[in-house]
Amino acid sequence: MSDSALVLRAALAERVPGYALPRAFHVEQAIFAREVTTIWRTSWLFAGLSASVAKPGEFFTFEMAEDSVIVVRTASGGLEALHNVCRHRGMRICQRAAGEASRWVCPYHQWTYALDGALERCGAMEEPLERSGLGLRKAHVAEAGGLIFVCLDEPSGPFDEAARALRSALVPAGLERAKVAHEIDYQVAANWKLVWHNNRECWHCHSGHPQYVLANFDAAPATAQWRELAQSRASEHERAMGDAGGAADEHAAPGLYAFPAPDRWWSANRTPLAPGFVTESIDGEAVAPLMGRYAEHDVGTLRIRAVPNFWCHASADHAVLTQLAPRSPHETAIRVRWLVDRDAVEGVDYELERLLPFWQLTSEQDWDLCERNHAGVRSPAFVPGPYAPSREYNVAAFDDWYVRRMFAANERA
Amino acid sequence: MSDSALVLRAALAERVPGYALPRAFHVEQAIFAREVTTIWRTSWLFAGLSASVAKPGEFFTFEMAEDSVIVVRTASGGLEALHNVCRHRGMRICQRAAGEASRWVCPYHQWTYALDGALERCGAMEEPLERSGLGLRKAHVAEAGGLIFVCLDEPSGPFDEAARALRSALVPAGLERAKVAHEIDYQVAANWKLVWHNNRECWHCHSGHPQYVLANFDAAPATAQWRELAQSRASEHERAMGDAGGAADEHAAPGLYAFPAPDRWWSANRTPLAPGFVTESIDGEAVAPLMGRYAEHDVGTLRIRAVPNFWCHASADHAVLTQLAPRSPHETAIRVRWLVDRDAVEGVDYELERLLPFWQLTSEQDWDLCERNHAGVRSPAFVPGPYAPSREYNVAAFDDWYVRRMFAANERA
Amino acid sequence: MSDSALVLRAALAERVPGYALPRAFHVEQAIFAREVTTIWRTSWLFAGLSASVAKPGEFFTFEMAEDSVIVVRTASGGLEALHNVCRHRGMRICQRAAGEASRWVCPYHQWTYALDGALERCGAMEEPLERSGLGLRKAHVAEAGGLIFVCLDEPSGPFDEAARALRSALVPAGLERAKVAHEIDYQVAANWKLVWHNNRECWHCHSGHPQYVLANFDAAPATAQWRELAQSRASEHERAMGDAGGAADEHAAPGLYAFPAPDRWWSANRTPLAPGFVTESIDGEAVAPLMGRYAEHDVGTLRIRAVPNFWCHASADHAVLTQLAPRSPHETAIRVRWLVDRDAVEGVDYELERLLPFWQLTSEQDWDLCERNHAGVRSPAFVPGPYAPSREYNVAAFDDWYVRRMFAANERA
Repeated sequence: MSDSALVLRAALAERVPGYALPRAFHVEQAIFAREVTTIWRTSWLFAGLSASVAKPGEFFTFEMAEDSVIVVRTASGGLEALHNVCRHRGMRICQRAAGEASRWVCPYHQWTYALDGALERCGAMEEPLERSGLGLRKAHVAEAGGLIFVCLDEPSGPFDEAARALRSALVPAGLERAKVAHEIDYQVAANWKLVWHNNRECWHCHSGHPQYVLANFDAAPATAQWRELAQSRASEHERAMGDAGGAADEHAAPGLYAFPAPDRWWSANRTPLAPGFVTESIDGEAVAPLMGRYAEHDVGTLRIRAVPNFWCHASADHAVLTQLAPRSPHETAIRVRWLVDRDAVEGVDYELERLLPFWQLTSEQDWDLCERNHAGVRSPAFVPGPYAPSREYNVAAFDDWYVRRMFAANERA
Repeated sequence: MSDSALVLRAALAERVPGYALPRAFHVEQAIFAREVTTIWRTSWLFAGLSASVAKPGEFFTFEMAEDSVIVVRTASGGLEALHNVCRHRGMRICQRAAGEASRWVCPYHQWTYALDGALERCGAMEEPLERSGLGLRKAHVAEAGGLIFVCLDEPSGPFDEAARALRSALVPAGLERAKVAHEIDYQVAANWKLVWHNNRECWHCHSGHPQYVLANFDAAPATAQWRELAQSRASEHERAMGDAGGAADEHAAPGLYAFPAPDRWWSANRTPLAPGFVTESIDGEAVAPLMGRYAEHDVGTLRIRAVPNFWCHASADHAVLTQLAPRSPHETAIRVRWLVDRDAVEGVDYELERLLPFWQLTSEQDWDLCERNHAGVRSPAFVPGPYAPSREYNVAAFDDWYVRRMFAANERA
Repeated sequence: MSDSALVLRAALAERVPGYALPRAFHVEQAIFAREVTTIWRTSWLFAGLSASVAKPGEFFTFEMAEDSVIVVRTASGGLEALHNVCRHRGMRICQRAAGEASRWVCPYHQWTYALDGALERCGAMEEPLERSGLGLRKAHVAEAGGLIFVCLDEPSGPFDEAARALRSALVPAGLERAKVAHEIDYQVAANWKLVWHNNRECWHCHSGHPQYVLANFDAAPATAQWRELAQSRASEHERAMGDAGGAADEHAAPGLYAFPAPDRWWSANRTPLAPGFVTESIDGEAVAPLMGRYAEHDVGTLRIRAVPNFWCHASADHAVLTQLAPRSPHETAIRVRWLVDRDAVEGVDYELERLLPFWQLTSEQDWDLCERNHAGVRSPAFVPGPYAPSREYNVAAFDDWYVRRMFAANERA
């Protein structure tokens, strides 16, 4: 048996449900390679914003591991996600992160493709080429409520149900007319699954995020008083929502909303904010003009997650989007974007020094925890410990989702 | 079957002649390792200049992947290429890039070798050592027309025929009395085969090298007018050559000279320059004194190529030599040298700002294309496309040569 | 057979006793991985000084490859070596290199452990956890004469005999009341075994260490005059030792003390210093106050070695400790510490510019030799040469020890 096959078999055999994943899952190159093929390339990945490709010809590129795709609005108003690889000799066709284009011209030998990827010209190829078979390869693409998702290979499942749920939840949020006020790229020295483990519980919040717990109920103990307070805030938010719309589940129960589930790789729900917080800012006060359909600030936070690469917290005045891309067993690229309404003017309607700190601090605290976690998990002395059912149910659920995808009976790898 | 064997078998099975090489050939470590063993260490590699080792004791070191050899002129006037590895405990004996020596003394325990590598002293070794068996190991070395080639392991074929052809072509060029006016080392983030693919066609020249196409005919469409003009320039060059000698094939036909061929890993021929160009300079004017036996400048360009690591364009007044060394599937070291006559004085007879730009620009444009090509080929979505027979016949020929060497029936690895 | 197994089998088959180790042992990742498992994690490794953990709660961390352990003095005065990995989700618990602690609190979810590693609290874990099974995992730890050794996994042999010998030898040296006057961390681009090869012979000393050979007899030819002089100095040292104690073997014979031996991974002995040298300093004069029980300076040098990671030269006034940790086949981390008596005051009792140069120079000369040796051994043209029995008996003995550990019948990997 090959070294790779041995590594996979041994790792799976060692895993115990309800306990942390064994070390091999976080350090072995053979496992990382399979994750890219079996999970990352067949999942729906958050790629960018509808607002970035509002007009025909507008595009952005999205990169994950060794893949690059161009997401572009075509003349018909549709979207395409085109593999950024010339069908001739594999040149990366587009080097820009975003912009406008009327067609794609390969910089090597000028093979020319329409906006939608169809091959239009291929110069000196005198052979009768089957041009219809030589358009830019298409990835799958879908949008919902201002968010664009792509799937690089054959999807492991349809996007339809997720689309309905996300659209419904995002109705009031106005993401489709947002702009990126700021973004930060991080290179985090931790396996991407440890980043999700960190995200999927708030047990660490009291010590790890002293500013976050003032604004949120996630980390509080589930006392009767707590339940009452959260429920009371949820009612206030509901009144403030007015007729803004949006059908996401409300979640005012203790702890994090259960996610992922066996049949759901996405979720969206509203969560109340603590008294004194009308948005996720350091002092709880608004940091930007209202977005979308909101008429008041005090609407709590709309949270969305989608494994394997996305989560978002959207208050009434700004939204913060986090996007992951794995680079190696030991490194994950993370982009955090702060969105405000497209008409908001920096220096007039909002200030970065008020907009950024809440989530910049929270993010960087988490990356630091993840890196120290990864350093510990690399130790050959690491033995996976038990998850706390009351606090880490979502971490366990993440592992279940992960193992199911990695080792499905109809495995792809 | 081992992972390595699986990778090799799958890559070969996926390859279709006339189409670009599959992704695996450009990214897999197992394939790279085999290339080093099976191609690079058994091929004749351009190592340096006869002019650098004109006198007994003069030497230079040549490095390729993890190999290092010392090329030295011995007392008898012969050449040796000695593996730069002490026969005792493997110390790298010589750390200098070039210089003069009278013997080789290992800096570790002073084992001492004659210029030709014979073991002379080995200090404390009281056992009767078979000293004749403990000289520095010899690589194969040969020179032709001022160029020195080495083969690190057993050659896959003899050097004789290449030597005759190169010597004959190089008679007028005077490389054996040249000096290096300048050299630049590049680390190019591309597989070495993509660098050859780039070199083996000029389809990309019109858009990629606007300055190059003004001087050369390679990229022009093969119209009757073009043929006439090229032929006319070739005739002018022939007159200008006078009795300078040199028997290389003339090549005034459209497109690049066919290379490599099933039985030829080298080639040399003269190519006409466009009207107004007496040398490969930006403005077409001479940039240095005449070299070798030339009596006039307007002689076109002598071009030489030798897979896997060398090509050269020699005008009457200067020559530009390009030398490759693979570092990983994803990186190639490239040294470009500009040669002029050894008596030419910088600032008097030539200026670097006039000598360098034509090929520095052309080279750097190519390295940029190669790097973008490599980035695209790394994508799992890459599907090899068809080569254009009229433009990429040499790219296809390169792949044929490569596959033949990698997977010969009497394979070495 | 897997690639890894093939590599191991081929390397062992190629090895010839009495000759340098074949190239594969210094470059193959599969061999490096086995070395970590089979040798490094089952050997007694020098970790640090008893003086650094004199009081209850004092600790230091020790890292080797991907392992990290906390060495701590407990309330009972005992020592523990705790794997620095939380039993919950693998967090690295302690980030500090040294300090004082009263317990260990994981920064992630505040699992709390007693100084000795016992689990005291684990927050939200409502399940009845078997806390006794969830203490920090313990590495093996032992101290002898002021030196602390740990074994990360099951020891390949007991520490008892080594403890007796080291304690006995270290009686007069006063290491348990020393302090670190200075330390330097090196990243050396050489395989760790080549560092040992360099350490296990002094044939290279005359050319490699001109300052070292003035102070020591190691590298001198074994003439009758030399023997007489060394013996005479040994007698002077014995008188100067007075009743300081210490039972280490005296070694005034030519060449290095034989080490390692089939049954001994450690050794300790006194070696005379050359006339004019009362310590290992550039000018031979004392560089710090007397340590331990010494009443005079002129006592020669106490030398200790322990494979795979430690050696030490202790004069009467200072000691120099060298500690290795492998990082990859091509890199070794090396820490060198200079120790003086804890009451000595920098600037008053000693000056770093007099204390450091002798061993800083010697160390850096060796690291340079090791790196050039590694560069040569990487060449595919490297053929292992014969060891000189009179000079390299310890290099051969090191290889014998290494091969025995790597390929023992009851192999662990």
